[in-house]
Order: sequence, then structure tokens, then C-alpha cells
Amino acid sequence: MAHKIIKPEMKIKILSSASVVGREEDRGPLGGSFDITDTKDDRFGMETWEKSESEMQRLALGCAMNKCGMSEDKIDAMLAGDLLNQCVGSNYGLSEYRIPYFGLYGACSTAAESIMLASIMCMSGHMRCAAVTSSHFCSAERQFRYPLEYGGQRAPTSQWTVTGSGAFILSSEDDSNIISGGEYVPCVTELLPGYVVDHGISDINNMGAAMAPAAADTLLRYFKEGHSPSEFDMIITGDLGREGSSILIDLLDAEGYDISAVHADCGKMIYNIDLEDKHAGGSGCGCSAVVMSAHILRNIKEGILSDVLFVGTGALMSPLTLNQGSTIPGIGHLVRIRGDKI
Amino acid sequence: MAHKIIKPEMKIKILSSASVVGREEDRGPLGGSFDITDTKDDRFGMETWEKSESEMQRLALGCAMNKCGMSEDKIDAMLAGDLLNQCVGSNYGLSEYRIPYFGLYGACSTAAESIMLASIMCMSGHMRCAAVTSSHFCSAERQFRYPLEYGGQRAPTSQWTVTGSGAFILSSEDDSNIISGGEYVPCVTELLPGYVVDHGISDINNMGAAMAPAAADTLLRYFKEGHSPSEFDMIITGDLGREGSSILIDLLDAEGYDISAVHADCGKMIYNIDLEDKHAGGSGCGCSAVVMSAHILRNIKEGILSDVLFVGTGALMSPLTLNQGSTIPGIGHLVRIRGDKI
Repeated sequence: MAHKIIKPEMKIKILSSASVVGREEDRGPLGGSFDITDTKDDRFGMETWEKSESEMQRLALGCAMNKCGMSEDKIDAMLAGDLLNQCVGSNYGLSEYRIPYFGLYGACSTAAESIMLASIMCMSGHMRCAAVTSSHFCSAERQFRYPLEYGGQRAPTSQWTVTGSGAFILSSEDDSNIISGGEYVPCVTELLPGYVVDHGISDINNMGAAMAPAAADTLLRYFKEGHSPSEFDMIITGDLGREGSSILIDLLDAEGYDISAVHADCGKMIYNIDLEDKHAGGSGCGCSAVVMSAHILRNIKEGILSDVLFVGTGALMSPLTLNQGSTIPGIGHLVRIRGDKI
Repeated sequence: MAHKIIKPEMKIKILSSASVVGREEDRGPLGGSFDITDTKDDRFGMETWEKSESEMQRLALGCAMNKCGMSEDKIDAMLAGDLLNQCVGSNYGLSEYRIPYFGLYGACSTAAESIMLASIMCMSGHMRCAAVTSSHFCSAERQFRYPLEYGGQRAPTSQWTVTGSGAFILSSEDDSNIISGGEYVPCVTELLPGYVVDHGISDINNMGAAMAPAAADTLLRYFKEGHSPSEFDMIITGDLGREGSSILIDLLDAEGYDISAVHADCGKMIYNIDLEDKHAGGSGCGCSAVVMSAHILRNIKEGILSDVLFVGTGALMSPLTLNQGSTIPGIGHLVRIRGDKI
């Protein structure tokens, strides 16, 4: 027997969200739709790349709280993570807030993981929870690949770590004083957490290939519970990029599910890939977080999209495990988000 | 207004737990009470320390599942973490299980964090969730300090990373077919998640001092909701060790709460500190996990303890943030566990 889809009995509303990005992201196709941008040098006024990343998380959560008029005591928990060793982007970035804190690590799937756990926490009682994630090109490059000064060449299948942080405030409280009647509110209506899936990929320059089987695994389990791709306005994956997206479409097609008409990928949407030499597209915890906040949720609120499957994808290796000859396990967490008039 | 204690309305039972440890832990005062021990070389049959740590998690969860007769399809989620970069101990160790996976990072507080989030998940519906954590002396030493071959001296305030993994299976399902009537079952009855607390400690050889203020912060918030230390058979902290424990007692004493008569610390209990040259005691994700499983929960089941406050403590820095001059933020997550006859 497979694990079932989790269906909240109460309304889980995404009250507000915010996005903070760097210069490259602001230049991309979604430029102008992000809330806060450092168009100068991606440092956000800080001395080190790690502190810049933390500052992005601080700004993202602050902005999301301002948008829905929430103070610290009105938020019951923060669930947050990033790609840095020991998740210091989140630990330091959110330390200013007197809000109960849960650190997460799901690689690039952390945006979906945090929204999922925040939803589950909201289901456990009347609560409001924040989900916050980030990545920074410069802190990630030197940790996972090479120091920036080295100027190494990049493989065509490699992805570009997004400099960005997204924050989401979810709630199962009444909130009727915050929401104006008649507007669309993005609500989390179904959850299907992923298994760890390892198909033996070991190429560090092809994360899309490592993550695609995990996304396919979760989507297949979802469809087999009686759903079809045509039910949705969009099935959006976190950051499979160009390589991983085409693998995902092929894997599902072989199982009889054609998602090509409704599939989109945050990693493909955030950059003008060919114009900007971004190879296979964007990746990182911040990639899906900022695309979901600035673009998808906005479209849901405006009634342009009404029913979206978001599958956050992550590659769960470390540089050390790859050096030890291990392959790359992936994961895909599925969150269904619908626009509801409340 | 402060954040309230979370009180499950349904019974959250800890159905079973398991502990896996290395040679040093088996030699300590709790030796003989752990489920699985590698008394030969702490490798658990693996080639690298990281793979040994993963293997401990695999064994711990398998053992806990066997104890309560659970198969993979009966467990709705695994919540797991460890100290390694990108949490690869958990990612690889649990990849064999076809169970939805959530990766966590809370440094040494991860055992409490995972039990807390598993409890909250159980509160959201009728569910069973596994909480799994680990640390390994050899993988932690080379990542956080020096390669073992270097043979560096250790400061008297430093702690010894426990080689151990603990797994807990929590449930809000009926389970009457598993539990024999009349026995004590450890139940999670209250939760108070911690804030990130930074009191400006920057000495990497004194984690106890960095974590004690966070434990004090959470316990103070708990006591101020109308509780007193004398209500409990034991208030047990995760791994403050000798230094941090005495700081915690002093901090609370200054606020009018004397916990000295009921305080214990997993880091002080796991080794014969003076005999075995373990300086300030044990630490690591595995420390509180194995002491709680092998000793505290066993005592609750046997009716020796009936009401315990467990405060898991973590130091949320990384070697890089310390090199950049940042101080060490701490966190303390509180879980109340009572023995109930069901």
C-alpha cells in the first residue's frame, strides 16, 4: 500500500509572501516582479556572501510579515533552510525574530518542504507559520564548486544557483480581518511528500538528471490516486532546469502521463537561459521560492492561474559523498495550491 | 505576548525507540542498555565514517520498526537529521526506506526537533511518524575540528561527539493491537519550540556556554506559563555537558527557579567523564537521541520515571561563520514526556 495524499480538512491559506533577489535575477524575464532587489552587487550591505544570504532571509520574512500586518507574536513558528553547511543562512538570518524556529535541510526542495511542514503545522491546530528559504550564487559556488576567483568553466548541463530568498506566511486561523472579501487567496489543498530516490546518477554537473526521477516518482504516486495532468493549469517543478525537465517529461510519458502541455520549471523561468549563458537554468533553494512568490502566487491571486501542482526538487548529496563515490539521491515534494475566494 | 505551549488534544504515543552506539558509548555508564553496538571499530561494516554514520541511522530505524512490528507503509513520514554538511548521514542512511522523508537541521537539538515535528505531524491527523538522528565522533571531528590523524589536544570545556543514532516511532493512531494493556507508554503531552538565542559566545571549545542561554530561555518561558521545576521527576537537557549544565542552573536560579534537584544532562550521563577523559561530556545529535531511547524512555516504561521535561539543545554555527567572526547562536526545544497507562 502506498502512502496517501495528505488533505487538510481546514483551509490552509498563504496569507502573504515575499521575494528578495540579486542582480542576475532582476535582469531575467521575471525582473520587476520581485519585492526587494540588490541591483548593485548582491551583497545587501554585508561583508561576506554568507552574511548577504542571511540578510536576504531577514528581509524576505520581514517583507512578508509587513504585507499581512503580522507581528512576531502572531506567528507560531518559522520553518527555514538553505544550502549552506549547517544551514547558517537561516540560523543567523532569522535569529533576530523572537519566533519559534525549526531548521530544515532538503537541498533545493527546501522551499516545498518548508511550505509542506508549515501546512502540516497549521493543520495541527489554529496556527500561523512562516516558511523561509534562500540560496546565494556566491556562497554556493565556493562551498559546492570553486572559489569565484578561480573562474572555472561550466558544463552545459550545469545549473546556476539563484541569488534569492522567499518567505511565505501560512495560516489556519480565521484571518477574516486581513483578507478582503472576494479576492483569490492561494490555499494549500493537498500534500504528497517525497521519498528519497536514487537512480545512480553521479555527475555533479547534472543535478537535473539526479532530481528528475524523484519528481517523477512523486507525480506518478499522485496521478495513481486518481488525478490526471489535464486537471491543472500548471505543474511546476522546482529547479530541474532544461535537462531535468525533459527527462521528467520522458519518464512520465513512458508511464502514460503526458504533462508537456502544462509543465513549467522555476529553473527555466527565472533566467533568459540562452541570452544570459545560464546553461541548463537556475537552481538552489531560492529559485523555486522566489518564482513561486513573485510569479505563481501572484498569478493565482489575480485569477490567471487557479490550480497548480508545485513539485519542489532537491539533490541530497554533499561534495564529500560524491568524492567518496556515492551517487546522488533526489527528492520531490508535491504541494497543490488553489486560488479560493474567501 | 509570548508564544504558547503546544498541547496535543489526542494521545501522541512513542510506540517504540531504538539506539545504536559505538565502542566508547558502550563502555560508559549506560553500556549494556543500547540496542545495537559496534564494539570493534565504530565502522558498522562500512568503508568511510560518513557511511558508518548513515548505516547507524538505517539500523536504528529498522530496529525501532521491528520493535513495534511496523512496516514501511504503516509509517507516514520520517523526520531526520545529523551534523554532517547537507545532512548526508540521514539522506543516505534512510534512502532505503520507501517512507516520505523530511530532512532537518537543528545541530545537537535535532533529536528534540525531530520528535517535536513528528508529534505535530501526528497532531494533524491520525498518523505515525519516525524521528531519527545521528552523530559520529570520527565524521564530526574531521568536519568541525581536525582530521583524527592530527591528534590535536582538546580544551577542558570541549565536548566529545557521541557515536550514536536514535530512532523513535510516534503515533496518534489507535494502535491498541500493538500496546499491551496496563503497561506505561511514553506520551508527548506538551511542546515548546525554542527561539534562536545568541548571547555572544564565540569559543568553539565551549558549546555548553553557547547553548545554555537558549535552554534557559525556553525553560523560563515554560515556567512562566504556570509550571515549577518540582512538578517533574527530571528536567533533562540534551548535551550542555558539565560547563553548560552549571551555567543553565545559575541562569535559572537568578530568575528564581531552582532546577538543581531534578536536572540531568544526556552529555553528562553517557560517559564516565573523568575516568574516560571526556572533558565536559558528550555532545552531538546522537547524544540525547540514544540516552533518551536507551535510558529515559525505558525508565518511563518501567514506571521509574513518570513525568520528564526534555530540552534538546543545539549550537547553530558553522566553522565558516566562526572564522568570519560571528558568535554562536543556540536553540532549546522542550518536549514533555509522561508515562501513561493505556
